[in-house]
Amino acid sequence: MKFQSPKGTRDFYPQDMAWRQFLTDAWRSVSVRHGFEQVDGPIYETLDLYKAKSGEGIVSELFHFEDRGGREMAIRAEFTPTLARMVAAKANTLSRPIKWFAIPNLVRAERPQRGRLREHWQWNVDLLGVDSPQADAEVIGVAVDFLRQVGLTPQQVHVKISHRRVVRAILAKLGVPDEKMTEAFELLDRRDKIPPEQFTQSAMSLGLDEPRVERFSQMCRRKYHTGDIDHLRRSIGLDDSFNDLGELDAQLSAFGLTDWCEYDLGIVRGLAYYTGTVFELHEVSGVERAIAGGGRYDQLIETFGGPAMSAVGFGMGDVVVTNVLRDKGLLPEDVAPAPDAFVIALTDAAQAQLPGVVAALRRAGRHARFSYKAGRNLGKLLKEASQCRARFAVILDDKAAEGVCELKNLASGEQNQVTIEGVGDRVGNSE
Amino acid sequence: MKFQSPKGTRDFYPQDMAWRQFLTDAWRSVSVRHGFEQVDGPIYETLDLYKAKSGEGIVSELFHFEDRGGREMAIRAEFTPTLARMVAAKANTLSRPIKWFAIPNLVRAERPQRGRLREHWQWNVDLLGVDSPQADAEVIGVAVDFLRQVGLTPQQVHVKISHRRVVRAILAKLGVPDEKMTEAFELLDRRDKIPPEQFTQSAMSLGLDEPRVERFSQMCRRKYHTGDIDHLRRSIGLDDSFNDLGELDAQLSAFGLTDWCEYDLGIVRGLAYYTGTVFELHEVSGVERAIAGGGRYDQLIETFGGPAMSAVGFGMGDVVVTNVLRDKGLLPEDVAPAPDAFVIALTDAAQAQLPGVVAALRRAGRHARFSYKAGRNLGKLLKEASQCRARFAVILDDKAAEGVCELKNLASGEQNQVTIEGVGDRVGNSE
Repeated sequence: MKFQSPKGTRDFYPQDMAWRQFLTDAWRSVSVRHGFEQVDGPIYETLDLYKAKSGEGIVSELFHFEDRGGREMAIRAEFTPTLARMVAAKANTLSRPIKWFAIPNLVRAERPQRGRLREHWQWNVDLLGVDSPQADAEVIGVAVDFLRQVGLTPQQVHVKISHRRVVRAILAKLGVPDEKMTEAFELLDRRDKIPPEQFTQSAMSLGLDEPRVERFSQMCRRKYHTGDIDHLRRSIGLDDSFNDLGELDAQLSAFGLTDWCEYDLGIVRGLAYYTGTVFELHEVSGVERAIAGGGRYDQLIETFGGPAMSAVGFGMGDVVVTNVLRDKGLLPEDVAPAPDAFVIALTDAAQAQLPGVVAALRRAGRHARFSYKAGRNLGKLLKEASQCRARFAVILDDKAAEGVCELKNLASGEQNQVTIEGVGDRVGNSE
Repeated sequence: MKFQSPKGTRDFYPQDMAWRQFLTDAWRSVSVRHGFEQVDGPIYETLDLYKAKSGEGIVSELFHFEDRGGREMAIRAEFTPTLARMVAAKANTLSRPIKWFAIPNLVRAERPQRGRLREHWQWNVDLLGVDSPQADAEVIGVAVDFLRQVGLTPQQVHVKISHRRVVRAILAKLGVPDEKMTEAFELLDRRDKIPPEQFTQSAMSLGLDEPRVERFSQMCRRKYHTGDIDHLRRSIGLDDSFNDLGELDAQLSAFGLTDWCEYDLGIVRGLAYYTGTVFELHEVSGVERAIAGGGRYDQLIETFGGPAMSAVGFGMGDVVVTNVLRDKGLLPEDVAPAPDAFVIALTDAAQAQLPGVVAALRRAGRHARFSYKAGRNLGKLLKEASQCRARFAVILDDKAAEGVCELKNLASGEQNQVTIEGVGDRVGNSE
């Protein structure tokens, strides 16, 4: 009887896991050097928590179950509700700004497709308690610093930025009435998934005449460079509602992020809870889903019973970024740790000493291995040492009883007789 | 409306998470230096997978749900079924020995109690494809090396070892018939949880007369030192069935583990799938649950559709070991990473330069922070720098326009004027 892994989930064999560990280590180190602290929550939450953020519609997208007390629980499909709950619970004692990151595994009850699996790992970066667009820029800077660290360039990935209040002001100016605003945002969000004639028809049903539909359509498709904010302001004809985006532009420039960023007013990020800046990271060819997405959500903490607290953040899943790096030839090889030493015994007496030598190396912090095979053939044992990418072979023979061994550098072939006691220092990574 | 975390689960705020990260980093580094490779599987599996290992009885201990295709799934409560499924699926291509470790989060649908929560994190270490007790000793050595690394001693924690086949031989010798063997093991497992008279009564119902009940009881309670294997053999009066334990004893000695280990024939580890050596790590006072437990399970891979493959491993949860370390005063303080630099601007012009200085430090791999507060008061800003444990303050004033700043070592108070360009090197961790 053989068993399968559940549909849309992954088994991480050593090579897959080494990459996931490399990726999460990169996420962690980037977050830490930007001053973010790691947090985590439970793998499941009350179903009510998710309903509070997203309404009843969310239930069908979650795997849910009853706990022993008959309460409805759901496996987490996103981290933000947990974060909002945790912040709301300790809002009075947490010093601000709250700069948190998390790397949870998340589960979505939906049909798996390219770039979107049922279970994935997601990097979440959130900055709470700061109104200023400087926080938006810092958060975008975290995402960009990660892209840079894994070898991506501004020619390969763009940060596409929009602003919910600016878009709303533009739509109002075009003549979209307040009660049709949600519908207009939805249309903006679907613009690339529907035929042009359907777009036009839907836009006209929002109350726009033909020239305005054309302006709406142009607005969605045109990209503006950061730093070119005055041009954007003029072409759209806005003033006050633009101040926040203007200040963000200045901060993106101050943090040195301009090369990576552009304004794309077609970026909407769903409709749920964003209140200002929204952004997505896209591979420029557009064949992949967004690498990451986020924005400002200034009302969510209050929704979860906390005080009024502004917030900005993003999430990046492991699946799309891995696809992008693979496509670009940027997936590093051999990220699994290689042994410092492979210990070999050539005689029975030496074999009796081997576990002690191995154990001493490990106690000294060295990565040491040995063969479980019964043979004493040096060639075969050296081959096993090379296959596991060991840097040194420690060869024990009859001289081991006198406390000496042969130390062979498996890259250079150089071999020396050394004391067994001194082997730990000789095979240290500092060499 | 405030929300609670689900019963028996934990929120990991930054300090809690820093400890969990420290602990999992220790688990990982110990595993790696012993030559184990990390793996992982999905957070949920088919319910059938768990039934295959543990029978229908397991269902009430799991949180389970239907996926969209109506298949019954369960959140993982242990990692071994996933490991066995993964090994069975690729048994022909995996080179042996298979040395794997994993650090999954696990969920049990049971009443939370001290040392046992609904969700916990568990270190799993498994070595497959080696019959020899050398593998058992190496696996025990991994657990012991971790204890040593976090500061525990052989005076504080013991590895209690038993052997299922030896105990079975002893029980048979005492007169327990084959068909009562399971019952006898269960009694052994419960010996400390029931009153002595109930133990006696139950032992007699196994068919033992009073002197033999007494010998059975003594056998359960007496501890034998490792290295004292001949004494154990004589006192029990066994020969061949003892060979495996005798070889394990020799290997524990060869790996230098004798100080940490003792034989305790009362250790049973449930009844499910262990076939030879079983062991538990216990804090000596006995007030806590086992820190870790494991043993040899030579038939499980076959049960999961793989080839016959011997296996030995253990699991260690994060909850008990954290309790033990806290009780011993061994929980390290301030394991969260401290900033290299806190950047301060004393003028508006310097403030405009600050994001660029911060970003450059971060791009150079330094952990850099700054204040979101509007003030320019040096004293207050230095206080904020100290509160976040920054090692250096980088102070920008009017000279920043000329590319120089003040660098203050916050431990020593020493302050120097340096170039802004050179700050990254000056605050590097190598200093």
